[in-house]
Amino acid sequence: MARLGINQYGKAETHLVRVYRDGEVHELRDLTVSVALSGELEAVHLEGDNAAVLATDTQKNTVYAFAREFPIDRPEDFATRLARHFLGGPITRARVEISEVLWTRLNDHAFTQSARERRIAAVVVEGDDVWVASGIADLIVLKTTDSEFHGFPRDRYTTLEETRDRVLATEVTARWRGEADWATARGALVDTFAGHHSLSLQQTLYAMGEAVLDACHGVHEVRLSMPNKHHFVVDLSPFGLENPNEVFHADDRPYGLIEGAVVRDGAPDAGPLWDPYPLL
Amino acid sequence: MARLGINQYGKAETHLVRVYRDGEVHELRDLTVSVALSGELEAVHLEGDNAAVLATDTQKNTVYAFAREFPIDRPEDFATRLARHFLGGPITRARVEISEVLWTRLNDHAFTQSARERRIAAVVVEGDDVWVASGIADLIVLKTTDSEFHGFPRDRYTTLEETRDRVLATEVTARWRGEADWATARGALVDTFAGHHSLSLQQTLYAMGEAVLDACHGVHEVRLSMPNKHHFVVDLSPFGLENPNEVFHADDRPYGLIEGAVVRDGAPDAGPLWDPYPLL
Amino acid sequence: MARLGINQYGKAETHLVRVYRDGEVHELRDLTVSVALSGELEAVHLEGDNAAVLATDTQKNTVYAFAREFPIDRPEDFATRLARHFLGGPITRARVEISEVLWTRLNDHAFTQSARERRIAAVVVEGDDVWVASGIADLIVLKTTDSEFHGFPRDRYTTLEETRDRVLATEVTARWRGEADWATARGALVDTFAGHHSLSLQQTLYAMGEAVLDACHGVHEVRLSMPNKHHFVVDLSPFGLENPNEVFHADDRPYGLIEGAVVRDGAPDAGPLWDPYPLL
Amino acid sequence: MARLGINQYGKAETHLVRVYRDGEVHELRDLTVSVALSGELEAVHLEGDNAAVLATDTQKNTVYAFAREFPIDRPEDFATRLARHFLGGPITRARVEISEVLWTRLNDHAFTQSARERRIAAVVVEGDDVWVASGIADLIVLKTTDSEFHGFPRDRYTTLEETRDRVLATEVTARWRGEADWATARGALVDTFAGHHSLSLQQTLYAMGEAVLDACHGVHEVRLSMPNKHHFVVDLSPFGLENPNEVFHADDRPYGLIEGAVVRDGAPDAGPLWDPYPLL
Repeated sequence: MARLGINQYGKAETHLVRVYRDGEVHELRDLTVSVALSGELEAVHLEGDNAAVLATDTQKNTVYAFAREFPIDRPEDFATRLARHFLGGPITRARVEISEVLWTRLNDHAFTQSARERRIAAVVVEGDDVWVASGIADLIVLKTTDSEFHGFPRDRYTTLEETRDRVLATEVTARWRGEADWATARGALVDTFAGHHSLSLQQTLYAMGEAVLDACHGVHEVRLSMPNKHHFVVDLSPFGLENPNEVFHADDRPYGLIEGAVVRDGAPDAGPLWDPYPLL
Repeated sequence: MARLGINQYGKAETHLVRVYRDGEVHELRDLTVSVALSGELEAVHLEGDNAAVLATDTQKNTVYAFAREFPIDRPEDFATRLARHFLGGPITRARVEISEVLWTRLNDHAFTQSARERRIAAVVVEGDDVWVASGIADLIVLKTTDSEFHGFPRDRYTTLEETRDRVLATEVTARWRGEADWATARGALVDTFAGHHSLSLQQTLYAMGEAVLDACHGVHEVRLSMPNKHHFVVDLSPFGLENPNEVFHADDRPYGLIEGAVVRDGAPDAGPLWDPYPLL
Repeated sequence: MARLGINQYGKAETHLVRVYRDGEVHELRDLTVSVALSGELEAVHLEGDNAAVLATDTQKNTVYAFAREFPIDRPEDFATRLARHFLGGPITRARVEISEVLWTRLNDHAFTQSARERRIAAVVVEGDDVWVASGIADLIVLKTTDSEFHGFPRDRYTTLEETRDRVLATEVTARWRGEADWATARGALVDTFAGHHSLSLQQTLYAMGEAVLDACHGVHEVRLSMPNKHHFVVDLSPFGLENPNEVFHADDRPYGLIEGAVVRDGAPDAGPLWDPYPLL
Repeated sequence: MARLGINQYGKAETHLVRVYRDGEVHELRDLTVSVALSGELEAVHLEGDNAAVLATDTQKNTVYAFAREFPIDRPEDFATRLARHFLGGPITRARVEISEVLWTRLNDHAFTQSARERRIAAVVVEGDDVWVASGIADLIVLKTTDSEFHGFPRDRYTTLEETRDRVLATEVTARWRGEADWATARGALVDTFAGHHSLSLQQTLYAMGEAVLDACHGVHEVRLSMPNKHHFVVDLSPFGLENPNEVFHADDRPYGLIEGAVVRDGAPDAGPLWDPYPLL
């Protein structure tokens, strides 16, 4: 016989734009909000009884209504408010994820979406417990030197040559738990990438995480995902040309994927914060 | 002070096409292979010492070489062979994920990629333990009736009307652990979606998972992720027209996201199989 | 001084799903409709006078209403009906493009989106003139042999070796003008790709277009766009392995892009049919 | 019988990254280059004779080699150099398109890809004639007020209400022919969008094009493509809330697509510059 295992449901990717027009100078917030609820949901799965199922349409409405009723401030706060609201009755855990697009002001009421990067937040509420992660996604950085890669093992299938000088390019996704000023954490990531002399992308990743811990004393843990977007030195010798690390082919796939966490000693338990969303 | 937390690295999305041309009738396999290794990797993160770091370039080479040296057969088997190979020394856990594109034969040596759906496999090897998940992704299905949604709670933010007849559309991702004939499992999923009278997408999801357990006795657990791709009945009344569930606006976002597992009683532990890949 | 040049506007990508539920056996159509109107539109561009500007919201409503009021049948016919409707007053030319997703029946009322390929149609109406193009997009095909490439010129920058046997893979977009049974035209394209002995992708493209002209006597012209999706034979010699055209790396970018038209002698003028949509 | 109609072929999307490391301060250029050649190509289409077909692989090599042999400077100049090179013998027309990603300096050798927007260039060379278009793509802008839309015609299918104050959001693609300082042209586009009081997106588009003509006297024509990315005021009245243009649902599809050209009086002929690439 079978039973219901891990499960969650909710409205994903509600795209909310909030304009504050109290004076001449307008403010703009651009959030995509995803909700995942779990709890006593056997009845709907086994019998189709929806008594415990707050409709995902209602969740969407709540996102829009809350944007009018309450301030947004930090996305973490808005997510926490939403998650607390959804908790109750059969719903014993609520996760809310927010992805915020950043706009740059052109004048009092015009803006341009200058950055590719997004600010992200994830909040899980369970009873009185609240877990909060903050972060950044799609932060694309590249350095043209100060990156080496050598000393790796060589087996039958190894053809890669060692290098003392390579291009290092990546697209950072970082999430940290605990309190931090977002701009400070972002700055620590960017400055460390730029200033670190890299012997491997893993080392750079760890240094970036450690820099966030150093700069933001309220942060317990930083998780980073950094694809190694390979830039290959093009062999120009068939054309009678040298290529002293100047002309590169930027490849799409495959790519290295380097992922890791840097944890402060004595960090509290992460609870369900890092549970995958979505599940698959 | 800080320490290294959870981490993994590897080559992602190596796109391998393997042609078997032993006779007039060629066979074609189209796999995208991703590798994630973990183990004693403190030295590279903290000091940039790569002695334990099998280069991701070597991993890519190994995928291509193995495709020549060994049969591919089921993607689970090919993934297991690769994962076992990467294990050893400082590497104590290897995860290999494969996504296979399915081609339909046109003649002895020509093919068309008729299906959007992909066959997927994930294997984790740790010491002598092997965990295997099989599955399907991007399986798009829709039913024009036999789907209801009512009896859900109404709060201040609820505007959705109850319905006894709606369009139900989704894009199934399913993963199961244990032994199964892939086509049998796929058939159970598709037939159940088509034949099930749905009172909610959760109920349909559970029925689909249960059907796989019924049809494939070696399966211990099925995990499903099913977005509810909303089809809204367009209000044609301003134009003096009725719309008896005939004309729909298919929306992109937001969407409901329904996820859940169906577990056989007495299922063995899943080990690290469901750990997220990628981490973020 | 400046003046208004070429221009058009309209609602793009209205996603319409139409269910015919007259009996037990339901029918399903899934169309994405884009409209582009042009005419005497100086006033809106220069002065912001919208008297000639049928709102794109109205265009969207019309698409949905027409799906209820009129049969859809061939997408070309539905597009023509819409284009004729939008013509009049200041609007002197209407273009309607339709992209249709194809669903396969599972039972009386359930369907699966089995094909990646889409059926496409473009119609331009101007006064009493109607130009119609039909076609197919995203038709992915591959052959493992029967493809050569040699005899090309060699200059200082040429390193490619000649080959008598390569994998040929492409994603066909084809448009034809004139009358044709869609399935017949599709069959001519697929059969010719599969059966043709190719000395270059250009030759295959031409043969495919000619086959449509042969099979569909009402067709005046076929335009094809066929990326050459390169499959590179992986060099396994560093691992002591031969690779007799068996193991390939399927690359994403760059790709060759081969485009061409095959025109029947005496074909009528194409009018504005091939004008680009969108303009940029 | 049939004949070859319009045709072109070439290597698309060669992704070139060029590092200038003459001193401590490195420079970085990131170009994606696409080539399309046409000419006397009957033999390859009809007989598979490749004597006139410069391999697309050779074209790719040439892009990389030229990046070493010659300065890149403006993408228009690099494209022109490439196009002139490919011309000759059977090739009577060469088109080269470049899309440049813009990086912002972090330090002497580290960069971040801060902008979504891309600089684009298209060059066509035919005999001694050279046509050049410059432009920008993916420039995302939004204004929270100073946008009206009313006075449009109302027919049976019109439900849209007139508005004196709406959010206006778009993603600008602009191409201009003639000489211009790129930053000046970009500034004219952005400043005009921000400062213009809009009665329709068409009027804003025209004003933006006119501003480029005013700011850049060498420009003959500006072509713009501007999707109207709808931001809908969410109806909060069911929840007892007013929504005075503060809470918006940002929708993905459908969208309005507004396209137009602004041409300087006495502009020379555009030749084949605006011919579509790709053809379909």
